[in-house]
Amino acid sequence: MAVPAPAKAARLLAASAAVLVLLWCVHFRGGLSFGSPTNKGLIFNVHPVLMLIGFIILGSEAIMSYKIWPWSHDTNKMVHMLLHAVALFLGSVGIYAAFKFHNESGIDNLYSLHSWVGLGTICLYGIQWLFGVATFFFPGASPTVRRRMLPWHTRAGLVVYILALLASELGFLEKLTFLQAAGLGRYSSEALLVNFTALVILLLGASVVLYVTAPMHNEHAHGYSAVHKP
Amino acid sequence: MAVPAPAKAARLLAASAAVLVLLWCVHFRGGLSFGSPTNKGLIFNVHPVLMLIGFIILGSEAIMSYKIWPWSHDTNKMVHMLLHAVALFLGSVGIYAAFKFHNESGIDNLYSLHSWVGLGTICLYGIQWLFGVATFFFPGASPTVRRRMLPWHTRAGLVVYILALLASELGFLEKLTFLQAAGLGRYSSEALLVNFTALVILLLGASVVLYVTAPMHNEHAHGYSAVHKP
Repeated sequence: MAVPAPAKAARLLAASAAVLVLLWCVHFRGGLSFGSPTNKGLIFNVHPVLMLIGFIILGSEAIMSYKIWPWSHDTNKMVHMLLHAVALFLGSVGIYAAFKFHNESGIDNLYSLHSWVGLGTICLYGIQWLFGVATFFFPGASPTVRRRMLPWHTRAGLVVYILALLASELGFLEKLTFLQAAGLGRYSSEALLVNFTALVILLLGASVVLYVTAPMHNEHAHGYSAVHKP
Repeated sequence: MAVPAPAKAARLLAASAAVLVLLWCVHFRGGLSFGSPTNKGLIFNVHPVLMLIGFIILGSEAIMSYKIWPWSHDTNKMVHMLLHAVALFLGSVGIYAAFKFHNESGIDNLYSLHSWVGLGTICLYGIQWLFGVATFFFPGASPTVRRRMLPWHTRAGLVVYILALLASELGFLEKLTFLQAAGLGRYSSEALLVNFTALVILLLGASVVLYVTAPMHNEHAHGYSAVHKP
């Protein structure tokens, strides 16, 4: 199946971001664990990995799905919905890891802009998913209502996606600032790695948004236009 | 002149954000000054005020200009260009204040994600402005080229605007994290004020983007469609 060039670029950026975040958490931060009794930092490390690989990368793939895949409309729709469901589930587990780390380390919860924007975003993501399922799957709205809702579904989806990118950028800045306040060098290789990871995610987001909002050259079967079919 | 409701909401949010950032810098942080010999923090305070009021709020106004004002196409275009020029100038002065504060306080420059994203954004903003002037003012492209360039001009403009919002959110988080590392309470009234300011800016950005990308109900003289006139 022929994947369009901008989607290839987005996937390359997504793969790079995944490698960079794993390199950070495993090589520089000692690995990942859900229940470390001695090194609570390992519990925290689950958070950026699941939020990025589970939530943002699967979310990006779901957003691009209608334009990439050559399958039938119904199959595309089902995969789009399932990918967002998995993203939402892994994102929730990732947020749970952050709370677990805070609670076991005696750190306050929900005082930072990152936590406010992040929690708000995943709530909006969940609401958007529920509305999508109710309108386009079960019980399912009438064809007229679906057609009328679709532009709102796609625009609201893009807003939530941009908020998720914002939350992720805020998260990288916040964690790195904590590490630097604790002595990490401002131009150390770890600091540069974290900043570059955040920049790659920004480029990933920009490529996904520009790709899915670009006008279609020809209205073929697996374009956004196909979504309009009831 | 009748201002549409979403633009009124955006302006109300802009005015609230301006009041909040002044309240922060004047009431909690001691005021603003370009050349304080004793309290270098006053030099820093020029940065958030000019970036927000000069760069983001005037930039928002410029982006909404074609949809708000009832003037002629040529007048709207001139005001759009001039507002972006003033935003760019005040933003540059605001960035100069941040460098001046760093240099006089012995703090490293350009090590944080906020600085990378911010400096990249203002460079892209400048390039976008220069391309806009060259295409639509002087020397000015042919009507066909203008018509072809316009959708790219508006899309690139929105991307740069969203990057400016991102840079501003990163800036509030970074500064507040520094203050909290130096002892400011995590749930203190100043911390809540800064986070609420960032949320108001986020709502301002969302309202501007949703307003200017909303389809027009009727294609009257001061809609986006009017921009297409050569």
